[in-house]
Amino acid sequence: MSDADYGLLNPAWAGSPVAAHTSDAAFVQGMLDVESAWVATLAAAGLATDDDAAAVTSIAQADLYDLASLAARGQDGGNALIPLLGDMRALLAADGAEASASKALHRGATSQDIIDSALMLMASRAMSVIGAELRTAAAGLAALADAHRGTLCVARSLTQHALPTTFGLRAANWLSGVLLAGSRLDAAEAALPLQWGGAVGTLASLRDALGTDPESGVRVGALVSDLASRLGLANPVTPWHTNRLPITGIGAALADVIAVGGKVAADVLILSRPEIAEVSEPREAGKGGSSAMPQKQNPVLCVMLRNAALAAPAHVSSLFLAAGTAVDERPDGAWHTEWAPLRELLRLAGGSTAKLATLATGLGVHPAAMAVNAGISGDLLVSERLMSRLTPLLAGGKPTLQRIIGESLASGVPLRELLRSDIPLATLSNRDLTTLLDPSGYLGQNNEFIDSILTDFQNWIAS
Amino acid sequence: MSDADYGLLNPAWAGSPVAAHTSDAAFVQGMLDVESAWVATLAAAGLATDDDAAAVTSIAQADLYDLASLAARGQDGGNALIPLLGDMRALLAADGAEASASKALHRGATSQDIIDSALMLMASRAMSVIGAELRTAAAGLAALADAHRGTLCVARSLTQHALPTTFGLRAANWLSGVLLAGSRLDAAEAALPLQWGGAVGTLASLRDALGTDPESGVRVGALVSDLASRLGLANPVTPWHTNRLPITGIGAALADVIAVGGKVAADVLILSRPEIAEVSEPREAGKGGSSAMPQKQNPVLCVMLRNAALAAPAHVSSLFLAAGTAVDERPDGAWHTEWAPLRELLRLAGGSTAKLATLATGLGVHPAAMAVNAGISGDLLVSERLMSRLTPLLAGGKPTLQRIIGESLASGVPLRELLRSDIPLATLSNRDLTTLLDPSGYLGQNNEFIDSILTDFQNWIAS
Amino acid sequence: MSDADYGLLNPAWAGSPVAAHTSDAAFVQGMLDVESAWVATLAAAGLATDDDAAAVTSIAQADLYDLASLAARGQDGGNALIPLLGDMRALLAADGAEASASKALHRGATSQDIIDSALMLMASRAMSVIGAELRTAAAGLAALADAHRGTLCVARSLTQHALPTTFGLRAANWLSGVLLAGSRLDAAEAALPLQWGGAVGTLASLRDALGTDPESGVRVGALVSDLASRLGLANPVTPWHTNRLPITGIGAALADVIAVGGKVAADVLILSRPEIAEVSEPREAGKGGSSAMPQKQNPVLCVMLRNAALAAPAHVSSLFLAAGTAVDERPDGAWHTEWAPLRELLRLAGGSTAKLATLATGLGVHPAAMAVNAGISGDLLVSERLMSRLTPLLAGGKPTLQRIIGESLASGVPLRELLRSDIPLATLSNRDLTTLLDPSGYLGQNNEFIDSILTDFQNWIAS
Amino acid sequence: MSDADYGLLNPAWAGSPVAAHTSDAAFVQGMLDVESAWVATLAAAGLATDDDAAAVTSIAQADLYDLASLAARGQDGGNALIPLLGDMRALLAADGAEASASKALHRGATSQDIIDSALMLMASRAMSVIGAELRTAAAGLAALADAHRGTLCVARSLTQHALPTTFGLRAANWLSGVLLAGSRLDAAEAALPLQWGGAVGTLASLRDALGTDPESGVRVGALVSDLASRLGLANPVTPWHTNRLPITGIGAALADVIAVGGKVAADVLILSRPEIAEVSEPREAGKGGSSAMPQKQNPVLCVMLRNAALAAPAHVSSLFLAAGTAVDERPDGAWHTEWAPLRELLRLAGGSTAKLATLATGLGVHPAAMAVNAGISGDLLVSERLMSRLTPLLAGGKPTLQRIIGESLASGVPLRELLRSDIPLATLSNRDLTTLLDPSGYLGQNNEFIDSILTDFQNWIAS
Repeated sequence: MSDADYGLLNPAWAGSPVAAHTSDAAFVQGMLDVESAWVATLAAAGLATDDDAAAVTSIAQADLYDLASLAARGQDGGNALIPLLGDMRALLAADGAEASASKALHRGATSQDIIDSALMLMASRAMSVIGAELRTAAAGLAALADAHRGTLCVARSLTQHALPTTFGLRAANWLSGVLLAGSRLDAAEAALPLQWGGAVGTLASLRDALGTDPESGVRVGALVSDLASRLGLANPVTPWHTNRLPITGIGAALADVIAVGGKVAADVLILSRPEIAEVSEPREAGKGGSSAMPQKQNPVLCVMLRNAALAAPAHVSSLFLAAGTAVDERPDGAWHTEWAPLRELLRLAGGSTAKLATLATGLGVHPAAMAVNAGISGDLLVSERLMSRLTPLLAGGKPTLQRIIGESLASGVPLRELLRSDIPLATLSNRDLTTLLDPSGYLGQNNEFIDSILTDFQNWIAS
Repeated sequence: MSDADYGLLNPAWAGSPVAAHTSDAAFVQGMLDVESAWVATLAAAGLATDDDAAAVTSIAQADLYDLASLAARGQDGGNALIPLLGDMRALLAADGAEASASKALHRGATSQDIIDSALMLMASRAMSVIGAELRTAAAGLAALADAHRGTLCVARSLTQHALPTTFGLRAANWLSGVLLAGSRLDAAEAALPLQWGGAVGTLASLRDALGTDPESGVRVGALVSDLASRLGLANPVTPWHTNRLPITGIGAALADVIAVGGKVAADVLILSRPEIAEVSEPREAGKGGSSAMPQKQNPVLCVMLRNAALAAPAHVSSLFLAAGTAVDERPDGAWHTEWAPLRELLRLAGGSTAKLATLATGLGVHPAAMAVNAGISGDLLVSERLMSRLTPLLAGGKPTLQRIIGESLASGVPLRELLRSDIPLATLSNRDLTTLLDPSGYLGQNNEFIDSILTDFQNWIAS
Repeated sequence: MSDADYGLLNPAWAGSPVAAHTSDAAFVQGMLDVESAWVATLAAAGLATDDDAAAVTSIAQADLYDLASLAARGQDGGNALIPLLGDMRALLAADGAEASASKALHRGATSQDIIDSALMLMASRAMSVIGAELRTAAAGLAALADAHRGTLCVARSLTQHALPTTFGLRAANWLSGVLLAGSRLDAAEAALPLQWGGAVGTLASLRDALGTDPESGVRVGALVSDLASRLGLANPVTPWHTNRLPITGIGAALADVIAVGGKVAADVLILSRPEIAEVSEPREAGKGGSSAMPQKQNPVLCVMLRNAALAAPAHVSSLFLAAGTAVDERPDGAWHTEWAPLRELLRLAGGSTAKLATLATGLGVHPAAMAVNAGISGDLLVSERLMSRLTPLLAGGKPTLQRIIGESLASGVPLRELLRSDIPLATLSNRDLTTLLDPSGYLGQNNEFIDSILTDFQNWIAS
Repeated sequence: MSDADYGLLNPAWAGSPVAAHTSDAAFVQGMLDVESAWVATLAAAGLATDDDAAAVTSIAQADLYDLASLAARGQDGGNALIPLLGDMRALLAADGAEASASKALHRGATSQDIIDSALMLMASRAMSVIGAELRTAAAGLAALADAHRGTLCVARSLTQHALPTTFGLRAANWLSGVLLAGSRLDAAEAALPLQWGGAVGTLASLRDALGTDPESGVRVGALVSDLASRLGLANPVTPWHTNRLPITGIGAALADVIAVGGKVAADVLILSRPEIAEVSEPREAGKGGSSAMPQKQNPVLCVMLRNAALAAPAHVSSLFLAAGTAVDERPDGAWHTEWAPLRELLRLAGGSTAKLATLATGLGVHPAAMAVNAGISGDLLVSERLMSRLTPLLAGGKPTLQRIIGESLASGVPLRELLRSDIPLATLSNRDLTTLLDPSGYLGQNNEFIDSILTDFQNWIAS
């Protein structure tokens, strides 16, 4: 019986595009990429031969290694890089590579350099997928915002009907969250740093190999810069082995992305209940159904988005905890604590954005149901407006209006009727009363806000 | 490149015995066990044939199923049971089983029944391993407590030297934590409940099949009781699909186990630093070493124990969150949120106890270093005693003593010497002063506490 | 401008009965209670005079002390007991107490003994309030469960209509959660332990004062036992200064209580939405209203219950973290980390149960709306039953039935009509079809489950 | 007995400068500031009179209000703004203000506008204090980095001695963390947004009051912009009542600040242990002492920094959770959940930076102890260098060197001596061997890294 995991207990991301970029094999590939880029860097600087670089590159393929064995042997030293290096050297030997290749491999580096940088590569690849899905989701939401800027619906506060709004503004607000999360994600992705410091963050071994003249410091800097550039990572200039804020920054950006998906899902889960039915998830053949209850169509996308939103905060807390308890030049447990939650946040963000993209581009919107639901509150939906506009017209002012509203609520007699009997036509014509009670005339900055957010969207897409 | 995980980023549990009981395959096996036990239950009650039961049992082996495919198809309905059932029915058909076997399979059950119960089976199997490791650890600690009840060392408070204690009492206090965690784990294991409620927790389908007479209610109860007994789970009498405290109870017990390991590790990580060196991790060939720095022996066991202790609290918070946000008869995301953290807690507890057992049974204890470290504080180690015993003998009382202690600290002149010059021999003989300054005479309830905890240990082991 | 807090940002508990038991003043009172009980214990054993005990008791009132000053001075040593002791001794002197009173005060104790035990007293007093509210809530839910065992409503799964259930069973399931939380709370309350260990957990100072004969160990034990009994706390026999599972146990029990309230609130928040309207919060004059939108009645109780359920998991994680990172005989930060989350959990549990009690005893239940909502699904509500019962009667079996259900969903033609045209009267009479479609005939173990939970409730109340 | 809190259970921030900016009174003052700025805004636009503005300003002082009463009455509607508005109107009436002042007050606003904006004001004032302390801390660390760039010490990895480094580089790495946290804090502070949206985020009431012509949308925008500018907050253009990423952004920045303090404390707590003694906390009269153990000097600053670092992650997780579960136009509990953790993070960051500033500017550094500790590893401290430099010179290569090192470890014979007997003088002169074994010659990029970080520091201070 296999000991491997395939995501059976992680439906929020299993099967989504991010999964392939965050598997154990992907992590091993990341470590191999870092090791081989480093030998290539050394070769380019004349510190290793091109043959060394070619030999290492040829064995830098994850499927050459036994992942289960690496995981098991990783316990001995607390990480999987140590046995991986052994296996790499064995492969080099088996391939008949020169001894110099084996010596160039991992030269002057430490396991933390490789693992941290491999995690950054994993993050980079996953965030690229996440960012693309987020753009698709944003485009879907932008289309909804624009199309439904005049689709009247009830705005709800503390679960209750409050005032009229439009479905377009609701979608625009979802989009607004996506835009902020997206810009933070972009910034975090651009900042993903190489980690390169040697055993204790001084790069002593590398520097020692370059000789004692002051210029060797500059040469070391150039090597690190070249390595960063080969890997597509930012060059942090100084190592961050003891300063883990690069990790918290990634985690917070991913958690923002997941939270945004959770907010949309929270709304859609409510709005797609049978009694409300204002929106519906896109139906895909074979998804969300129940064989025993064929009438039932589960909002599976949103259930998964909500699952991710409930799960992510715990993982982000672990990253801040690890950063705040890191001791010495390499900590006694805090560093290891970062790995699993960082990957899980990448996965949850990937699963979440994939589902959000599907949802945003296929959401069913049902204006008729919105009108029916608005009708539950009827004229009371604009009671805020009546409070400010009618109070001056009523003998007794605000208390009188509150009494009338109370009567309407208690008796079911439409508010309009009761108002009419208290306010003479000369004071307020029927036409003016109709205008006053029309919720579509009480939408405030609806259009301005939608336009502003759509402009932000255009700017983000263009960036 | 494989999409599977093998624990490369989870060194705290990868490779430990619990891993095999908590893999995706183990979870699938759990679901298969529940399904086949249910058909067996039906058959025993005459509601299915023995052939049906045999047919289902024969396909209830996890290695007959494609786990990666189950994970991927699980997205459609939000869980892996739905595609698994499809695969099971296909296998039954391929095996030439009667149609009745397929109909008996999953009869009256819902996916939550199978998944919750399979998780309880997984927990049961994992907790059995964890409990055994915990007993080994406890035995190791008990031996240390007894052997070192007279091994003097410094007790530290807020990192500083406080008073003398013994290494035996420290080990006994570790044991005391293990005993409390162990008794809570035992209670949680004994309470692991079957979940059986049908689609909405009424068992309507099952009841409907048994007819309308009042006795059928009793028969339904008997079926559920039989199922629980076949699976070795507790019979909760009523379903807990909406009441998730069984899950928080398991999580809290596991987090306690992990916390206890973290406390021991926190101490050992300090005490095994080269400058302190009072204890050392058991050395195992090939573990904890560094090829570049061969003099370095890393306390890998404790690093992993600490990793687990830093990671676990976040997971336990997710379980309480899921319990407190579960809506409806099956929630819209909270239920799915339980799965991953519950499994991770089982794994962390399993990895943690395995490492604690190794540590406790092989810890190197170095009394000589303890004596050297105690010597740093010298006579000041019993300053609390001097404050109460010498104050009455000194002209000027407490302030005088504080002044003398200050002088000793500032000048490095031994406290004894300074005291001697302030207290006449007639008031305090040299012999009495020696007795007073002897830290081994200021150990309070050391023996009583150790004995009390060892008795608790014996009782737990006997239970 | 005052620096004090009154709970303005903590509406989930501010103003509830638990607040008075968990204020800073209450904590100071707890410390004073522990200190005065200890001098009384010493006096009873002849180790202090009755006058000493009386003198200390007379100053053991929190309102004699300047709390703001204690808080500010507490920074110097990391806790407030140190300045409190100074103030107590100054008060004793000002009162003209004998010097022996000042010497007896805090004799042999350490600040952790006082603070841990004071927190246990605070917990005891708060949990007593919480337990009482929980019993009120349980009684309210029991009444609802019994009264509405025949009140038909829709059971929902993943937000969608699933099968029929009763509102009584839903209330019984709420009650089931309360009962489990309640029994765990009772157990935690009974286990609240005294902490008494002296500076490093050996009680060396106390033992030293009692002389060197072996009997003095027994006498020390008797003193501790007497102190525990005076304070109404459990005697843990050995100190738990390094073993913090007593704290995690309390935290988990409180978090369970809060989660149970969150589950009820999650349901009521959905069910009281205007479009669903199956239940409504008790209306209290002046609560939950909006002056600008007088028609709006906010479910404030449930909003606060949900707030607590979202907030609590983070606090409980901090307690497990503190337990798992406690180093030495007194830790370097982990101990201090327990205080705020432990108190906040007491407060959230207190606020939560107070609100749950109000909710459970005053919930408005609206069977007519339940019937209307069930009507949305109509005959499809029992589709699971039809799947098992009608499949054998239909030519084409299950696929035929699924086609008919699909037609009904698509066309809006009642399922009954479509079925009638496919199943001859001879096969199924109109009367039998009516019976089959009646949701009240498909409630499974509804009565058995309600009765079972009500029996558990009676047993808990009687315990 | 007072129900108020003074921070007795929160030593990590009680008594620090941030406390006054984050009290309940400070929050009430924030709400009053927002309300009075709004009436001033209206007056400036001719929508209220200057007398109205003056009347509201005159009652906008927190000490005019009964905070305990506000907290208690706040339960009715779920927040304290509702009763505060009532009290404000009562004060206006008592002051004889025109009715128009009362009408202008809160015009078109909703309680969320006031509370969110007041929290942003609180954050702004607290972050200003935090930023200043952080700059003081940074300056202290910069001085240490520069002064100790040549102070040799041991770098530790997984608690064990690894290679030489300098205390200056360690301080520079601390500084590097502070700089990243500081720049994130600055960005978060600059982005603190006004929230202004009216009851459901459309500003319908305000817009309605300005008439129906299209220009009124622009006028509304101008009013909001003016209000933001009066309050010193950013103008977000569109409301963020449903998009809570502004809150998560603040929380993450504060948690970063706290984590950085935690990292420094983790190191200092280790390095100031009596057995290591490489640094010591600044001694302040009366702080960190123990009356019973006068020789004991507790590292209270670091204990509090660590307390904050252990506590903060849980709070930040609550903010992400609230953002991801916010439903509707105002959520049913998630919004309320933000308040307490956001304030606690401000407080912990404030307390933390105050302590870090004291620590960084007064840390005792003990190079002699560093040298002693380095001596424990002796020549083995540069074993990494020997591995690369001596392997080519030794018959048998690496295995021979490893054997020699093993012998040195086992026998205690200095490595130099053993090496000397294996490597002829002709191959390696005594002088060259001495050079090779000198740890101060194996510091890699020590100076380059320190200089780079100091340059970043200068740039930040200048920014």
